[in-house]
Amino acid sequence: MRISARNRLKGTIVEVKKGQTTAHVRIDVKGIIVTTAITNEAVDELGLKAGQEAYAIVKASDVMVGLDN
Amino acid sequence: MRISARNRLKGTIVEVKKGQTTAHVRIDVKGIIVTTAITNEAVDELGLKAGQEAYAIVKASDVMVGLDN
Amino acid sequence: MRISARNRLKGTIVEVKKGQTTAHVRIDVKGIIVTTAITNEAVDELGLKAGQEAYAIVKASDVMVGLDN
Amino acid sequence: MRISARNRLKGTIVEVKKGQTTAHVRIDVKGIIVTTAITNEAVDELGLKAGQEAYAIVKASDVMVGLDN
Amino acid sequence: MRISARNRLKGTIVEVKKGQTTAHVRIDVKGIIVTTAITNEAVDELGLKAGQEAYAIVKASDVMVGLDN
Amino acid sequence: MRISARNRLKGTIVEVKKGQTTAHVRIDVKGIIVTTAITNEAVDELGLKAGQEAYAIVKASDVMVGLDN
Repeated sequence: MRISARNRLKGTIVEVKKGQTTAHVRIDVKGIIVTTAITNEAVDELGLKAGQEAYAIVKASDVMVGLDN
Repeated sequence: MRISARNRLKGTIVEVKKGQTTAHVRIDVKGIIVTTAITNEAVDELGLKAGQEAYAIVKASDVMVGLDN
Repeated sequence: MRISARNRLKGTIVEVKKGQTTAHVRIDVKGIIVTTAITNEAVDELGLKAGQEAYAIVKASDVMVGLDN
Repeated sequence: MRISARNRLKGTIVEVKKGQTTAHVRIDVKGIIVTTAITNEAVDELGLKAGQEAYAIVKASDVMVGLDN
Repeated sequence: MRISARNRLKGTIVEVKKGQTTAHVRIDVKGIIVTTAITNEAVDELGLKAGQEAYAIVKASDVMVGLDN
Repeated sequence: MRISARNRLKGTIVEVKKGQTTAHVRIDVKGIIVTTAITNEAVDELGLKAGQEAYAIVKASDVMVGLDN
């Protein structure tokens, strides 16, 4: 599937940690660790585990801009 | 200010394009272009322009995971 | 690409309306019109136009629940 | 209350599953299962349970568009 | 309608500014100006204008926490 | 850090409740309790606890408008 989300950052999953309903998946994107919070069901459906190539996907309207002072 | 958002990707602004109310700011993060949609007012308040160092900031719950097949 | 977003509602695009930076795309999903606000760039990249089959995609954490009284 | 959110999909709750802080509520909308992640407190305040008529509510800026290929 | 969103801040609309597709509505909540970005269609459907009592509504998962240093 | 998010509501943390992965932090803003859902990691990194001054931060595109009938 092709999606409209502007940001698709390719990397490698380094950690999958499930809670009771929400899981945290961490993806190493060029040395930057991107943290994602998704459902346990998504983790199971996609079979996510450390070592896999994956994308961190973010809609442009969900990105803010910050400046150091 | 320190914020709870898990993802703060440091880069350089490469484009600021204002619409009537919504602006698109593009940030080069290690060669990856991250697109953000923010208000024109935020662009003005922060004085955003190409060439500045800036962060693309994303809350973990706004990040999805994708796999190539 | 396979994505973690839990909600992928299949339908047909019935309207694409571009603003200066933000576009509204309406998708008919089993007779329900779903409105999406995405970037003009996404519309252009995907070549979205009325009549196409498309999915309205929503992360579970972006869905609220409402009750009639 | 009337709200600005463009998408209010009417259906029937088919499952309510609480975690420690986050609950997953599934709503059948014309045969499509919509998954929502909301707080346990919201589930309690609204008294959500399977069998109830309910709406899945989504702001237009939280909907993406996907295409098969 | 009753909704699951945890945050419903009551105030008075002080400004409605439409762009081509996206409008900015500002609500004074106890002296704090809350800025919202919604569709022009929502502004028209609800008939929003300055002087009206209104709520700024936010899902808990869309709120971050910040600290001064 | 200065951020583009339009809404930064100053208040006092009144409760921090951790789940397995997701925490709920409540902030009293001029007598209004604002509920936020953030990661446990953010709570730990910022050292959040009741009694602290803190900001509830929300991007304008994540705020909806509601009316009483």
